[in-house]
Amino acid sequence: MATQSKAHLDAQYGKLTSIAEEAGVSLSTVSKVVHRRRDVSPSTRDRIEELLSRHGYVRPWDREATTARQVVAVFRDLSGPYTLEVVRGIVEAAGLMGVNVVTGTTSARPIAHWLKESVALGALGLIVVISMLTEEDQRHIVEDKLPVVLVDPLSTPSLEIPCIGVTNWSGAKDAVHHLLELGHTRIGMIAGRSHSPAGSARLHGYRAALEEAGIAFDPAIVRSTDFDYDEARHAAVHVLRLPDRPTALFAASDSQAMGVLEAARQCGLSVPQDLAVMSFDDSLVAAMACPPLSAVRQPFEELGHEATRILLQLAQGRPPASMRIELATQLMLRSSTAPPRAAS
Amino acid sequence: MATQSKAHLDAQYGKLTSIAEEAGVSLSTVSKVVHRRRDVSPSTRDRIEELLSRHGYVRPWDREATTARQVVAVFRDLSGPYTLEVVRGIVEAAGLMGVNVVTGTTSARPIAHWLKESVALGALGLIVVISMLTEEDQRHIVEDKLPVVLVDPLSTPSLEIPCIGVTNWSGAKDAVHHLLELGHTRIGMIAGRSHSPAGSARLHGYRAALEEAGIAFDPAIVRSTDFDYDEARHAAVHVLRLPDRPTALFAASDSQAMGVLEAARQCGLSVPQDLAVMSFDDSLVAAMACPPLSAVRQPFEELGHEATRILLQLAQGRPPASMRIELATQLMLRSSTAPPRAAS
Repeated sequence: MATQSKAHLDAQYGKLTSIAEEAGVSLSTVSKVVHRRRDVSPSTRDRIEELLSRHGYVRPWDREATTARQVVAVFRDLSGPYTLEVVRGIVEAAGLMGVNVVTGTTSARPIAHWLKESVALGALGLIVVISMLTEEDQRHIVEDKLPVVLVDPLSTPSLEIPCIGVTNWSGAKDAVHHLLELGHTRIGMIAGRSHSPAGSARLHGYRAALEEAGIAFDPAIVRSTDFDYDEARHAAVHVLRLPDRPTALFAASDSQAMGVLEAARQCGLSVPQDLAVMSFDDSLVAAMACPPLSAVRQPFEELGHEATRILLQLAQGRPPASMRIELATQLMLRSSTAPPRAAS
Repeated sequence: MATQSKAHLDAQYGKLTSIAEEAGVSLSTVSKVVHRRRDVSPSTRDRIEELLSRHGYVRPWDREATTARQVVAVFRDLSGPYTLEVVRGIVEAAGLMGVNVVTGTTSARPIAHWLKESVALGALGLIVVISMLTEEDQRHIVEDKLPVVLVDPLSTPSLEIPCIGVTNWSGAKDAVHHLLELGHTRIGMIAGRSHSPAGSARLHGYRAALEEAGIAFDPAIVRSTDFDYDEARHAAVHVLRLPDRPTALFAASDSQAMGVLEAARQCGLSVPQDLAVMSFDDSLVAAMACPPLSAVRQPFEELGHEATRILLQLAQGRPPASMRIELATQLMLRSSTAPPRAAS
């Protein structure tokens, strides 16, 4: 992999500061000349160019491979708590590998733009987080062999594009299994949308846990919403006002679980005494919730590390061992879950 | 300002795809040759180099100014809700200006590294968010005229480095004034650390509001902590267990306010009936809290826009009109504030 070592960076930098001193100009001016910007007078430019070659300074992009030090990571948007965790995972992993991360959103500029931009930048490749790829994007990636890794895509992509996520199905199943063990038998769900692979897998995990326990699926206490606070709050208020309301609710994301907590408060129900709440994500808001949320933990750092690692491998022309990777989730128990009143 | 237009990007891209087709190789291989990477056979490289010059393709960095399309934005860490909002503001603003954002942390690599890296990348400059600059970093920035903008620094920097923040003092004063108007007279504060300029300004805003109302400052109900959930929770539990506990608490950040909500729950107090809670930030967690938090809203998008705008101006050699900019905050009222029981 192509990286600039710290020693090399220091040496290059040392040359530039010496040149600035010798020419009696600022480092910023030297940098402008290095980058061939126009806002330097021709005479200064010539003097500095002469010093650059005398000092044996070679522009990074005139040496082999040194521009290949960036990955581009794009997100549907930068608004949810999930996003920040994944940004951190990627930036940390890339930092360890001496690679910089260009961050963008696909809400502002489509994936097609970012594919072109990655090529134009000479980036090592593109990581696409929770976004929808068009058929054309996918064909383009596959035909042109562009190094692209998907994290939690919003639709099921071509098998030729590597894709990383977590064990949504078994994570959800574990969560519901825990509620069953606490003694709950009437467990509802604020699920995600069924067209989202993650949302669908979490709903099916919930159903599988109930089925194993011999409990019939009751659509009256299951609602699908976006991974969104407000929608989940409305849906949960509806479910909690049913005559035969559930004693536990499983939310398919932290944003939804926060909405469930607020719905319970609005309905005058105490969590966990009147209602146990289980979440999925364990992003930064879960531990800050009131009460702190029990949640299925997504391994965000590992997600970022794996995505970066596989991308760098792809950039070297080595396909990953598997085109589908699911990282294991883990159950984090906090204060939002307890046995139901009757059973306690 | 140097940007690559969409039309130009498309044209460049079109040339590269034609060349790939003509040479019977993938676009990825053409990109490798363009970026002078070694993992291409010499014969392929020669054939593609020949096609590149025949098509009149000029590498972006061989034309004037086109490498100057990046800004580097570094954060102390990428772990709090505040951070995500600022990341979004910068990425959105930069996107509108056709500039990419390289994101990093100063916890992993010091500011001195990022200063060098910005020069090495030929970036337009560096935005440093909530971080501590050493004397040496500052001298370096000033002497070498590096384009650097600080957002909410953790210590008061040299007057020669432009610095953007919000009206912490008057925002805090407005928040406490609102609690006074609701009828509260015993108002405590979970403040930030006094060495942080933002933390100090918010504490003094609180004191000013009390003083104007003729209420004596009572250090027993004011505690300083980091902008941190757990520390704030401990501090709030302590204050709420005092015999003469406050009927309202003002928290200096959303993370701290979330801790206050949990402390109230642990002490068996209802918010807002037994305790009004006011926050500062209004990051994504404020509206998701239980109950949703009244808060002093920081204009995150504007912060990002202003930081980016000033940086691009600096990169063109134009100093900003003012080296200190404070953007106005706004009071957002939600469900965590209400009159005290006795007054209602």
